[in-house]
This record gives sequence, C-alpha cells and structure tokens, in this order.
Amino acid sequence: MAGPALDFWFDFASTYSYLAAARIKPLAAQANVAVRFQPFLLGPIFKAQGWNTSPFNLYPVKGRHMWRDLERLAADLGLPFRRPEPFPQSSLLAARVTLAGLDQAWGEEFSVAVFRAEFAEGRRIDEPATLTAILLGLNVDAKSALDAALSDANKLRLRTQTEEAQRLGLFGAPSFITEGGELFWGNDRLEQALAWAARPQPGS
Amino acid sequence: MAGPALDFWFDFASTYSYLAAARIKPLAAQANVAVRFQPFLLGPIFKAQGWNTSPFNLYPVKGRHMWRDLERLAADLGLPFRRPEPFPQSSLLAARVTLAGLDQAWGEEFSVAVFRAEFAEGRRIDEPATLTAILLGLNVDAKSALDAALSDANKLRLRTQTEEAQRLGLFGAPSFITEGGELFWGNDRLEQALAWAARPQPGS
Repeated sequence: MAGPALDFWFDFASTYSYLAAARIKPLAAQANVAVRFQPFLLGPIFKAQGWNTSPFNLYPVKGRHMWRDLERLAADLGLPFRRPEPFPQSSLLAARVTLAGLDQAWGEEFSVAVFRAEFAEGRRIDEPATLTAILLGLNVDAKSALDAALSDANKLRLRTQTEEAQRLGLFGAPSFITEGGELFWGNDRLEQALAWAARPQPGS
Repeated sequence: MAGPALDFWFDFASTYSYLAAARIKPLAAQANVAVRFQPFLLGPIFKAQGWNTSPFNLYPVKGRHMWRDLERLAADLGLPFRRPEPFPQSSLLAARVTLAGLDQAWGEEFSVAVFRAEFAEGRRIDEPATLTAILLGLNVDAKSALDAALSDANKLRLRTQTEEAQRLGLFGAPSFITEGGELFWGNDRLEQALAWAARPQPGS
C-alpha cells in the first residue's frame, strides 16, 4: 500500500508559497509523507471574489504587514528574501513550464528555483529569459521544455488545475490537501497538514 | 527600568482572538513580557475597507476554512470550541466593560471569560445578561461595572482605542505591537511577537 500523500497547491505569485516551497520537501521527508506539487492560478479565483489584483495591493495596510512578516519569517528560517518588483508578477508561463516538468522529474526543483528567483534574487519570473536560465541551470533542454509548456494540451492542463482548485474550495495559496480531503491554508499550516496526512487513516 | 511589554489588541467578535486570549498570559509569563490588553472595535476598520460584516461571511469559502481551522487548532490546544450563532456578535458592550475593568484589575480575566462564553459555551456576548453573569462569576459588582462601562468618559475611551488601532495600521485581530512599534498580526504570530518583545533593545 502506498504511504500517505499531501497535495501542495501553489501559485508562483504568492508570497507565502515561496516559504512553503522552500520548506516542504525536507519536512515531508521527515514526516514520511509524499508531496504532490500542484501549480494553479489564483487570478481567476481572486476575480471570482471581485479582486483584480493581489489582496495585498487592494488592502495596503494588510500588504504592509505581509511584506514585513515575510521578511521576519524568512530571517527566522535563514532564507534569503528580497521584495519583488513589480508585485504580483504573472505566474502563467512558470506554471505551464512546471506542469510540463512534473512529468519529467525536474518540475519540483524548477518550482523551488522559480520562487527563489522571484523572492530572493529580484528576477522577473514573467520573462521567458528568466525561466530559460533556470532550466539551463537544471540541465534541462529549455527549448523543448518551453515547447511542451506551450502545447495546447499543457495549456488545457493548467486550466483544469485551476478549475480543480476552485472545485476544492481553494481561495489562497499555499494550500495543502490530504488524501482524506482535509484542507489547510497557508504556510503557517504546513507542519499541521503534514502531521494530519501522516496519521493513521480510519479503516486502514 | 521596566521590563519588556507587548500590546495585545483584540476584538471580542474575532475568532482567532479567542485562541490568543486563552494563550497569552502563560506564554507572556514564560517569556518575561508584560502584556497590556487593548480592546478595540474592528467594525469601523472593516467599514473603511468597504466591508459591512466579517470577511469570513463576505468570502464564504474562506469562512468555511476558518471554522474548520479554528476547530483543529482548538483541539490541538485542548481548548473547548463551539461555533457561535450568530456570527459575528456585537462586541461593543463587552469592549466597554473590559475597558472599565482594566482599571480595576478584573479586565483581563473578564476578557478571557467573554471569549470562552462566546466561542466555547455558545452564549450571546451581545446580551447584557451574559456579561452580568460573567461579572458575578468574577465576584464583581455587575451594576457598578455596567454603569462605569456606559459612562460618557468610558464610551469615548473605546472610540479613542479604535482610532488608535487605526492609526497604528491595524487591519485585523488579534494584533500584537512591541514597544518598538513592531506589528504582528494573528494568533499564529503570538510566540514570535513575545520573542521579539523580549529581546534586548538597541541602546538598552
């Protein structure tokens, strides 16, 4: 029988997803939980709530706290942090490339590197050149990866991911869902979500 | 020289303030930090953001997660929890009574008891009878306390608290502010706020 698993739903424009992406693999290994990376787009979900940009831009006092909070949390975790400009950046292409990469074993490492480029290195993840450089750094054939990312089938796959996120009741990122359907929202809940996923299931 | 202190800003209608109120005194004692209870009203602050009720009601998928999250966190903390009906309840009278009580040494205990009545016992904190019962349970002269709460000076004091919260950039509750002005939002940040408050200040 397969061990416990946790779905990790993230959007590359999401600030707290950076922290979760940097932390999840070692924590999941410790908890003996398999993680499934699930990129999606928050944009359509925010739009359905009447927001046309990040709520951190719509509510400036909340945004001010978020940047400071992120800075403090990153310092406590020993993670580099630099506030991206502009914010948010379109995560569409990066999410498409990730989906293509998850078929090919480099999707997770690529995801972590994209978050680092955006939130630690001040690079523009909405620019294909940045993604190409990241792919090359991972020894991935960038041209093939981008071609696969931009195929109709892969574009449809990302739309399906985002619809699935909506169906699951996701309203922000990162979010974590156990196989039993338990939903946890936010980097702050990563440890709790892993512990929940790892505990014995009824009937097993 | 006085030791470090932390301001604890809360609204009795705030779900996560229940958890913080139940936890803050023992944690602050461990951290050697003095806590100052600062009741205020979120209503005017939400209104300034264009919300006429709790964002958890305005965004139902977010609200659904919040209730489940609260239930899980309370279970982990060994705190009783029962979803209040209706939600939110007016916190105006309870906040006024608290301010009167903070002058008289029973304000903190009263606050914790009001949160417990609302979020653990299914009682209506917007009803004077509930507050009277809580006061009697604390051996406080309920009539004098309510008279003091409803004095013009005390009403003005609550308005001033709420204006001060707005001036400080508070946008939700609970919030914690160190003497150096560092703002932490949310029950999830209580430990971090205490640690920040406790660390040596530059120049001291």
